[in-house]
Amino acid sequence: MRENSIRERVGFVGLGIMGRPMARNLLKAGYAVTVHNRSKGPVEELAAEGGVAASSPREVARKSDVIMTMLPDSPEVEEVVLGPGGVREGVRPGALFIDMSTVAPATARKIHRELAERGVRSLDAPVSGGEAGAKAGTLSIMVGGEEEAFERARPIFEVLGKNVLLVGGPGAGQVTKACNQVMVALTIQGVAEALVMARKAGVDPGKVREALLGGFAQSRILDVHGKRMLDRDFMPGFKTRLHRKDLRIALQTAREHGVPLLGTAQAAQMMDAMLAHGMAEMDHSALYLLQELLANMVPKPRGLCR
Amino acid sequence: MRENSIRERVGFVGLGIMGRPMARNLLKAGYAVTVHNRSKGPVEELAAEGGVAASSPREVARKSDVIMTMLPDSPEVEEVVLGPGGVREGVRPGALFIDMSTVAPATARKIHRELAERGVRSLDAPVSGGEAGAKAGTLSIMVGGEEEAFERARPIFEVLGKNVLLVGGPGAGQVTKACNQVMVALTIQGVAEALVMARKAGVDPGKVREALLGGFAQSRILDVHGKRMLDRDFMPGFKTRLHRKDLRIALQTAREHGVPLLGTAQAAQMMDAMLAHGMAEMDHSALYLLQELLANMVPKPRGLCR
Repeated sequence: MRENSIRERVGFVGLGIMGRPMARNLLKAGYAVTVHNRSKGPVEELAAEGGVAASSPREVARKSDVIMTMLPDSPEVEEVVLGPGGVREGVRPGALFIDMSTVAPATARKIHRELAERGVRSLDAPVSGGEAGAKAGTLSIMVGGEEEAFERARPIFEVLGKNVLLVGGPGAGQVTKACNQVMVALTIQGVAEALVMARKAGVDPGKVREALLGGFAQSRILDVHGKRMLDRDFMPGFKTRLHRKDLRIALQTAREHGVPLLGTAQAAQMMDAMLAHGMAEMDHSALYLLQELLANMVPKPRGLCR
Repeated sequence: MRENSIRERVGFVGLGIMGRPMARNLLKAGYAVTVHNRSKGPVEELAAEGGVAASSPREVARKSDVIMTMLPDSPEVEEVVLGPGGVREGVRPGALFIDMSTVAPATARKIHRELAERGVRSLDAPVSGGEAGAKAGTLSIMVGGEEEAFERARPIFEVLGKNVLLVGGPGAGQVTKACNQVMVALTIQGVAEALVMARKAGVDPGKVREALLGGFAQSRILDVHGKRMLDRDFMPGFKTRLHRKDLRIALQTAREHGVPLLGTAQAAQMMDAMLAHGMAEMDHSALYLLQELLANMVPKPRGLCR
């Protein structure tokens, strides 16, 4: 299986913070990888490591059996796949398209539909685990699409991540990612509100975190992001503006399906307040700083904001 | 240490769902335990197992070196300790008072102060882990008070729980418990919103839970309460009305310290809606049902509400 797959020629579009280490890991695993990116720097970097540079997504598609994208948002993915010079123009029947970006489930389903008309199967396969997970090849990958396409992609996913699960049909990976971002947002807010309350009530928030990690309040967020809050270390990690973007997708998707998300809407407003305070590029755990601001504990986190 | 402690005569007031198994575990561990409860049934039950029945908290205090309480809320604890026929009237200097109820930190500090005037040390030691943890002796215990008093109580705590931590001075245990309830409430809401969105978007919520348990959305709530939501099994567990009470304490405490809790306030309103739907005695994970109601997925969860 793996041997067969290694003969698949892979194309990779989008060599940002996430895409670059992912494409690199595929090269290291022995895949032939054709790469494209809007800015040239990362393309040259990957070409120097054995990748093949392509001048457009169309050219990537022409030269690949499996075409992958890792882009910022839905419009970029639609443009790269369906726009002029895009994947659709170069792709051949029998190829497999995998979008690993976090986009709207509706976008994933649209692409699935449009490429199916060309005899091309698609998977939506958003990830969690951030830059560190991309570098280490330990991403969680939530996949939507058909079983057969998933099995074909599995050896590639296993190079990129550890936790790989087919959750359902087209769009199901994106729905799962939206679920992830909803849970993470509210858990961060719970941890931030609690730790600020503890601190202002004169109780050591480090002790609180330690005590609560052993009980029902245990979460990976309390562990990892709680630590960041205590250390006041808000280097991303995962940027607030990207989490806010993902909540937009979650709220939009929920609205399309008639699901009011009261907690999520409120958390999204908290993040808007963070953006208003110049915290866009800080880790999303910096919600703690906004909570401190609400509690008037610091005049303004000057050193941390622009 | 343990041998010394076993010679301490223990008094226990409040033999409800939590207090009964806790007093029973102390008896089993070899302690002499004098018990009192407003209704007689549980007193007779514990007396039949080797406990000594007392007719009032005052009598419990007279016969005990360590007096413990496990009661529903702040007013009950104030009444039992400071009211007529209460612990204060019977307690001797050198005794130790331990309140394991979940009450306002302000109440804990008041009791600590008032009993200190009689030469009695106090600990606030609320727990998490529920009825199952009380029975198994695996409660998490968050303790506020002086180090010396904590060391004296440690052998007793080790009979009742596994995760025992002194978090700070008087009231710090209650502040920590309030933090616990804030985090748990928001995490439950995050899980409920996400799983309802998944279901209504046509994605198997069981697959979503499975996928997300491996990533940053991992939490004990997603694991345990997420399972309850999928099974639609809302037998408590921890009753919604008690969690709502604990959020009242958290919001009140936060307000006293000038800390607005936007997410918690919103979650408390969700729980008020649950109470309005007759869900008071259901497990707090039944927030999922309210979320389904909001999404108009069921006309009303009739079989589950009164």
